[in-house]
Amino acid sequence: MFAKETYIQRRAVLKQAVGSGLLLFLGNDDQGLNYEDNAFRYRQDSTFLYYFGLSAAGLSAIIDIDNDREIIFGDELTIDHIIWMGVLPTLRDNASLVGISDVRPSGQLKTYLQQAQQSKQTIHYLPTYRAEHSLKLLNWLGLMPAQQAPSIPFIRAIVAQRNIKTDEEIAEIEKACNVTADMHLAAMKFIRPGMYEYEVVAEMNRVAQMNNCELSFPTIATINGQTLHNHYHGNLIKPGDLFLIDAGAELPSGYCGDMSSTIPADKTFTPRQRAVYEIQNAMHKASVEALRPGIPYMEVYDLSAKVMVEGLKALGLMKGNADDAVREGAHALFYPHGLGHMMGLDVHDMENLGEVWVGYDGQPKSTQFGRKSQRLAIPLQPGFVHTVEPGIYFIPELIDLWHGQKKFTEFINYDKVEEYRTFGGIRNEEDYLITETGARRLGKYIPLTPDEVEAIR
Amino acid sequence: MFAKETYIQRRAVLKQAVGSGLLLFLGNDDQGLNYEDNAFRYRQDSTFLYYFGLSAAGLSAIIDIDNDREIIFGDELTIDHIIWMGVLPTLRDNASLVGISDVRPSGQLKTYLQQAQQSKQTIHYLPTYRAEHSLKLLNWLGLMPAQQAPSIPFIRAIVAQRNIKTDEEIAEIEKACNVTADMHLAAMKFIRPGMYEYEVVAEMNRVAQMNNCELSFPTIATINGQTLHNHYHGNLIKPGDLFLIDAGAELPSGYCGDMSSTIPADKTFTPRQRAVYEIQNAMHKASVEALRPGIPYMEVYDLSAKVMVEGLKALGLMKGNADDAVREGAHALFYPHGLGHMMGLDVHDMENLGEVWVGYDGQPKSTQFGRKSQRLAIPLQPGFVHTVEPGIYFIPELIDLWHGQKKFTEFINYDKVEEYRTFGGIRNEEDYLITETGARRLGKYIPLTPDEVEAIR
Repeated sequence: MFAKETYIQRRAVLKQAVGSGLLLFLGNDDQGLNYEDNAFRYRQDSTFLYYFGLSAAGLSAIIDIDNDREIIFGDELTIDHIIWMGVLPTLRDNASLVGISDVRPSGQLKTYLQQAQQSKQTIHYLPTYRAEHSLKLLNWLGLMPAQQAPSIPFIRAIVAQRNIKTDEEIAEIEKACNVTADMHLAAMKFIRPGMYEYEVVAEMNRVAQMNNCELSFPTIATINGQTLHNHYHGNLIKPGDLFLIDAGAELPSGYCGDMSSTIPADKTFTPRQRAVYEIQNAMHKASVEALRPGIPYMEVYDLSAKVMVEGLKALGLMKGNADDAVREGAHALFYPHGLGHMMGLDVHDMENLGEVWVGYDGQPKSTQFGRKSQRLAIPLQPGFVHTVEPGIYFIPELIDLWHGQKKFTEFINYDKVEEYRTFGGIRNEEDYLITETGARRLGKYIPLTPDEVEAIR
Repeated sequence: MFAKETYIQRRAVLKQAVGSGLLLFLGNDDQGLNYEDNAFRYRQDSTFLYYFGLSAAGLSAIIDIDNDREIIFGDELTIDHIIWMGVLPTLRDNASLVGISDVRPSGQLKTYLQQAQQSKQTIHYLPTYRAEHSLKLLNWLGLMPAQQAPSIPFIRAIVAQRNIKTDEEIAEIEKACNVTADMHLAAMKFIRPGMYEYEVVAEMNRVAQMNNCELSFPTIATINGQTLHNHYHGNLIKPGDLFLIDAGAELPSGYCGDMSSTIPADKTFTPRQRAVYEIQNAMHKASVEALRPGIPYMEVYDLSAKVMVEGLKALGLMKGNADDAVREGAHALFYPHGLGHMMGLDVHDMENLGEVWVGYDGQPKSTQFGRKSQRLAIPLQPGFVHTVEPGIYFIPELIDLWHGQKKFTEFINYDKVEEYRTFGGIRNEEDYLITETGARRLGKYIPLTPDEVEAIR
């Protein structure tokens, strides 16, 4: 938790930006795994954390701009809670730490909102990403799920604030990045043929937890790196495999890290693995060198894609004009995801508010395969924190689909591609802060080049 | 997953037991942590697992008893899924593994249910323990949350089946118990003064994950064992502390283990710690020796409480007649929880269906403090799997409350109790199968007596 002035100031800026109405903040509740009392690990809503700082189930808050009130709704612990959960500071004491003196029982929220509805106040609320949120809006506002309409002015005001990280936030993110780097370094030293993937995951989790961190997202740790969101960890690691890791730590404060690395199961890369790895490295290097205030991140994405096309042309996998190939989307056979995303209190920062607001300033996203997965397109600004994570993959099902459709035969040498169909995938990912003059990598360095990776093995 | 005959036979028994109507099974979906696509680890609903075996988001099932149909509703993967999630068997193939040939798109379920409503079929469904369940019943059946009424005949039929574990289930539970024991053994060797609690948690999680297991519930690992459901892991372990662990593994099949242990932060117990530990051990031993078919588990609870009262009388902490003290509830100052609970696909098996059905056969529970937390009261039957977990605690807030109320002064020597107010808590927990003639401990043995605990330190 930051000093209370941070939260007071954040709320003041938000009030100013939205201007009028009532802002409703739904804190997250506990969620039952297989029965109500067997809960998943608790995670507070990030927007609630940003403006109200308290990480506990059962809280809601409002900023009633029209009546100049800031209220946290929640219930104090009973003696039964104390016996089962221990002595904790009171809600009133906790609220004072974030500059809130008006604390009311949770049962009073519905009445407050109903009175606001009666007096025709505009009630602003955010998109629901948990079923519990929809049920609360149904119960409190009498709106069926299909009638629930998030407030665009509320979303835009939050995005404008949260997209620019302050120094105290950057310090937190850098801590999360350091733990994230330690997780990758531990795994890079640990992996050997004959292990199961889940053993690598166990080792990375151990490092996170020894640092009192949670995971910022479900770890990817796989010999099938070509499967982009592969959360299966049951495979045996074999000699010759490429092992791809995408994992990050989340601090108790909620701030996240997110890095990727790709290493050979053996101590060294094969010549073919090294050749593709060098292309991925060139994409990464070109992207990082391009980072500066004012450059649209979509332009950096295009750059990374073109560097890849040139590299794959040299290997005989692609052909033709690189600019044309990238404009038409042929590169996405090998690079079907984006170059990076905002990062902060969420690993994909504010994804719950809508990528189009966070990364596109409300402009429509491309529908082109590959490009549509770019989560951040707008010109970079000082204070942005985002990932840089180009990748190259050989996805047999996608190759077969496109080949069968004779798609982009002017850019893709399918016969050559066939030789690589069991190659797997390569991705490296680092986290960057945009500064006044360029960009700064956040967190400890992890091996990036083939030589560096082999050296740590 | 078991052989498909297992699932076919389970469903046949269930149909016979309920007799008529339509049984609706809500599979669990993914749940967003801080945005929709950043999901908690996936956990299928245990009842769905028991009758339909498939562990994947997006599934529902019905057993239409009146029309003799068994249908799984869900959607096959698209090429987009395959690129992001990999090649997986089709839903149709998976369904055939559990003896289901009728697979329909998820969009058809609502229509099927509406037709059932129109033809006045009784639609049986279970209690909702996730908000997503309530939203589904709202959407599919048009029932507002307050109108949703779980089916008692459905619940009772499931409980009657799931309470009696088969040999193949027992083999799975024993595997989970073995991993659980390994988690405790690792922690018991690992803990040293100067560590933080979360370091112990990291070590236990590592053992679970190296065995490809999840946790069956959030780990308790604390120097404040008197706080019963303490999930905070931020304390420094100091010399002289008692460290209490309650943790268990969950297999990929969903079956659970659940054990507790208490060890000194130092290599040995103090004389006072040992004296209370011996009383807890006597409670444990008396309880285990009493296990046999036909004995009500509430009777075993009473026995464990009386053994404690006699022990605490010997230490000067209690006085008076032990039978009277336990009947009136004075023991609960030191022993405020139950002796144990059913265990299976859930660590508190079927808690989502209601403890009164699982552990009380529909009879009302006591409202007495302490006794009301006993989750299992009915006569034990061969095939029951449950925990045995007596404990002794000194909870300062509860001591102060009762002392201030002059509660049970005929049984409690509050002046003597004051001397123990910083003692903490002790619990040991094992898992038992009721057999035809008695009971069998499940899983590897973990140190239970003070001598055994000191030996492993």
